Formats: sequence, structure tokens, C-alpha cells
Amino acid sequence: MKIALDVMGGDFAPQNPIGGVKLALESLPAITKLFLVGDPAAIEKELKAQGVSSPKLEIVPASQVVDMADSGLDAVRKKKDSSISVAVNLVKDGKAEAVVSAGHTGAAVTASLIKLRTLTHIERPAIASIMPSLTKHWVLIDAGANPDSEPAHLVQNAIMGSAFARHVLGRDNPTVGLMSNGTEEEKGNALCKETSKLLRHTAGINFIGNVEGHDVWDTPPDVVVCDGFTGNVILKNAEALAHSIFSMVKSEIKSSFWTKIGGLLAKPAFKRVHTRTNPDEVGGMPLLGLRGITIIAHGSASPFAMKNAIRQACESIQHQVGPHIEAAATAHSISLHARS
Amino acid sequence: MKIALDVMGGDFAPQNPIGGVKLALESLPAITKLFLVGDPAAIEKELKAQGVSSPKLEIVPASQVVDMADSGLDAVRKKKDSSISVAVNLVKDGKAEAVVSAGHTGAAVTASLIKLRTLTHIERPAIASIMPSLTKHWVLIDAGANPDSEPAHLVQNAIMGSAFARHVLGRDNPTVGLMSNGTEEEKGNALCKETSKLLRHTAGINFIGNVEGHDVWDTPPDVVVCDGFTGNVILKNAEALAHSIFSMVKSEIKSSFWTKIGGLLAKPAFKRVHTRTNPDEVGGMPLLGLRGITIIAHGSASPFAMKNAIRQACESIQHQVGPHIEAAATAHSISLHARS
Repeated sequence: MKIALDVMGGDFAPQNPIGGVKLALESLPAITKLFLVGDPAAIEKELKAQGVSSPKLEIVPASQVVDMADSGLDAVRKKKDSSISVAVNLVKDGKAEAVVSAGHTGAAVTASLIKLRTLTHIERPAIASIMPSLTKHWVLIDAGANPDSEPAHLVQNAIMGSAFARHVLGRDNPTVGLMSNGTEEEKGNALCKETSKLLRHTAGINFIGNVEGHDVWDTPPDVVVCDGFTGNVILKNAEALAHSIFSMVKSEIKSSFWTKIGGLLAKPAFKRVHTRTNPDEVGGMPLLGLRGITIIAHGSASPFAMKNAIRQACESIQHQVGPHIEAAATAHSISLHARS
Repeated sequence: MKIALDVMGGDFAPQNPIGGVKLALESLPAITKLFLVGDPAAIEKELKAQGVSSPKLEIVPASQVVDMADSGLDAVRKKKDSSISVAVNLVKDGKAEAVVSAGHTGAAVTASLIKLRTLTHIERPAIASIMPSLTKHWVLIDAGANPDSEPAHLVQNAIMGSAFARHVLGRDNPTVGLMSNGTEEEKGNALCKETSKLLRHTAGINFIGNVEGHDVWDTPPDVVVCDGFTGNVILKNAEALAHSIFSMVKSEIKSSFWTKIGGLLAKPAFKRVHTRTNPDEVGGMPLLGLRGITIIAHGSASPFAMKNAIRQACESIQHQVGPHIEAAATAHSISLHARS
């Protein structure tokens, strides 16, 4: 498998992306080529510092870096030689099978959208995030690609999320819920209410209705659909809240001798919960709906998270969910025309 | 203080509201009158079952109950003798100083909006929820009153939230953040971007810009502004996620002898974290922006949470934040006209 990595993207670039490369080379034998895209001098220096070298690595120069303050569109239009643009071009040109970036999400989405283009009958790409819960993993879609979504986009998110849950997570006839502010049908904002009506009549979607907090963190459906703004807010709040709760527990445990002893004994239990809820374990989120594979990693991704994002890229190359999405979206479009 | 309680509202009515009354009578001496609104037979039966009796209690009959499947507006229009409508009327008629309900939020909001009406220069009421974090409490506004908000509503939320943070939480020059999918100014959906522009020019608001998950759960501003859909999603997801993490920890701790012992020793630490994050401790959320006090309790509120919601009503009566909101909203309106 050939993967392009945006080495300059992320809060801790190029250290953490190169740290991820090191771990990936050790644990992902399916990789035959890793294109390291960015400033050659910075990359070579970091490879040397971390003692990484492999014939599988190839440095591809890119002279610009997208700044977090750039808008996604501006970043792609004005910085044609940015690491993310050059990395996506490698996929577009068939040299790489997937691109991984921990950089500016908007720029990664826009570059992928413009260069790779959407699948037939998909208007907007969406980020699929694999989320934990008490009982099973679920897919949050859209986790941040398209902040101003329309009802048709959310229906397409349902189609993409279902295909992903079926073909990647192995869920048979995956259930789909619509994130809302109440489970009753008449709850929701205008976008929700309109989407709910559409999803009730979308062939091939096992729609179970509106869902809210306790549904998704306890016994979630396989797929939870929302707009990219709401999804990103859910994702970031969940990560931060989980982190804060662990910090509170840690500090309270340190407050007395006996709780400290208790904390030491219970540590393996905490560790298992931490592993179950740690976003670094998943590492990357596929951007679905495009004619090519883009994996979005967290801006603050650790080397471990970057390695897992590269692993996600390998899995995406293996599963090739794109054609399944296109088939489902086409079937939906035909059924729409048959009804109208 | 005279408070009207919607005894028929909530998932566990009338037991939990009456359970809350029992605790409130024991711990809130400021209460001089508690109007118990609902089906007199059911209320009397429950009072007897729980051994509650006091000269401060007065049953006010209401023949209807709002169903969770009703829309808020329908509930108020078609069920004129519902417990929430009758309870709000007691405030409207000056017999009670505040109303508390754990029933249908939309119905409580709509009944309060129609009967109590908004303050001058406030177009929509908003629910203010006091939230925990690693460092301090913060105000989430709107936590669910107005799911389809416009930028002007969010500015009003900032004004209301600031007045609440200042006069109820005692924060001097409270900081205000706008919930978004990124901290950079150009991040956000269309609503966010437009609101951000307005907030930068709103006199009297200490606007610090966009905030995201790690800001609010770690070192939050005093007030976080969002639309009622996003706020409700954040609130419910946070409650549910915290609950799921505690459940995971519990079940992992039970998995071996030593972690079980550790869990027992560390229990006081967990208890303190649970207390810090337990929404029942806050109990109720004031609906701000109206000419009267409405406290929204959680549908699944325990007797302890109901008591705390009644305590919130007492505190709201004491603080009288309404006139402060009106003064700030009026000053804002004058500054708008002066600029245009």
C-alpha cells in the first residue's frame, strides 16, 4: 500500500508525524511506500533525530504550509504548493492510494474535494468518526467536514455512514439515528425535522429516528447522523470532557493516602477505560464521499495516534468503501426520481 | 417565597416532584408557599404515601397533562388546563414568584413565553445551564429553549448569560465565548460566523472569541453562547458521556479482586468527582429573558434534583436577574441605533 503523509500538518509537526511513521514502519507491513510530503530539510532532520530510515520512505517536497488562520478555500487556492495540496495530488495522480493529514481540517477537506471530487450522487464529503460507548463502537457522521449542511447532505451522510458501518465495521443492516435535542419525532431544529422526514423514506437506510445523548453513549445505533458543525462540537466536547473527568479523578485520588493506594490498585481498570475512550486509539477519521481516500488525524495527534491514522489509511485502502457508497447513493437517487 | 410546582411534569411524576417538595420543606425555610399544580387526587395520594404535609402547601387543580409527543405550541394552545399552563398562570397572576417544571421543556418554554412575555429588547427566552469543569462553573446559554436561533438571538443570549454570570455567580466582567468547531475567527457555521462579528461589537460584552471542547471543560469562559439545538446536544451528551464513563470505570473495577479493593479505597475520590459533575446537584435551569421566573428541571429529575430545582427558584427570586438583563439589552439596543 502506498500512502502520502502531510508531514507539516498538525500542532506538533514534523515531530509527531515522523514519530507516527517510525511506529507505522514497525507495525504495518502492508505499507510498501510512504510519501513524506513537506519541507525536505525539516523532514530529513527529523528522520535523523528519530533514527528513522527505510527504503519505503520517499520525500516529496512542498514549499508551503497551511496556517490554522487560513480559510480552507483560501489555503487551497493561494498555497498551491502546500504540503496538504501536494499530498492530495499524489492520490489524484495515482501515485498514492491514500493521504493522511493532521493539519488544518478545512484545508484537507477542501483540497480533497477539489482535487479528488465527489462520488456520483454525493454532493459533499463528510468525516466519519468511530466513537466509543458503553456497549459498542458507532459512527458519527459528519464530524466536521461540512458545517452548514442541508437535509439532502444529511441523507447522504446516512448513506455513507451505513456503507461504512456495513463494510468496515461489519454491521449487518446498520441502524441509523439522527442526532437531535429529543427523541420524539417533532423535536429538533428545522434541519433535523426536515432530515427526519427524508430519512423515513430513504430506501436502504435502517432509520430508527432521533437520538440524544444517553442513546449514543449507552446503547447507540451503528450510525449517528448530523451536520458537520454539530458533529464536530460533539466530538471535541466528548474528548475534552472525558479528559477532564480523568483529570478530576486523578487529582481527587491524590488528595488522601488511602485514595492514593486505592488509585494504584485500581489503575489497571482506569487504564482499560482510558484505552476504550482514547481517541488516539482510533487515530484518524476517513473523509467519505470522494474518489480517493483521505484520513483526517487530530491536530494534536501523538506519534501513536499518527501511526493509527496511517493504519486507518491501510484499512480504508483494503475496504474500498467508496464504490459501496456510490452504489447506495445511486440507488437512492433512482428511487427519488421514481417517486417524483 | 411563593413557588408554583408542576407536579405532573417529568418522567417520574408525581412521585419525584413530591419527593422534591418533601426535601425542600425540610431545607428551604425561605419558602412560605408551595403551590402543587396537577390532579388533586394524585397529588393527595402521593403526599400521603410520602408522609408530606405542611400548611405551606396548597394544591391547585389542573385537569390536563402535557404529553411528551405534543409539540410545545400545541400543548399550550390545546391543553389550556394543563399543569404547566396553570402553574405559569400563578406566576402571571402574581400569586407565585416562580414556577418549576420537570415536564415537556418545549411546553414550559412556550407557556412561559406566551403568558409571561419577554423583557424589552429580548426576542426569545433562553435556558441557562450551570455547567462543571476542571476549574470553575460556567453558564451554557441556550441549553434548549430556541433550537432555531438567529445571530441576534445569540447576541441576546450573550447579554442574558453575562447578566446571570455577574449577578448570580458573582463574576466580575464575565468572559463570553462562542461555541464553535474551532477557535479561529473564520471557523464555524454561518450562524457562528455572523454572531462572532456581532459579538465583537456588542458593548458591555467581554467577548473572548470562539471556544471549543477543551476550552469549556478545562478552563472555560464564564459564559458560553450557542443556539438552543447545539446547547441541548452539548448538555445531554455531556451528562450521558459522564454517566457512561463512570459506568465503565465501575464495571472495569469489578473485573478483578485487586481493582475491586482499589475501587473501595478510592471511593471517596470518585464520590467527589461524581458530586462535581452530577447535574442533579444543580437541579434546575432558569429560563432567562422573561417577565417572570421559570425553572426547567431534568425530565428524569430525582427528588434530590427536584429539591435543588426548587432551590434554584428561591435563588432566582432572590437575585432578580430580569431587570439587569433588561437594562443591558436596552443599552445594547440604544448602541445599535446610535451606530446605524
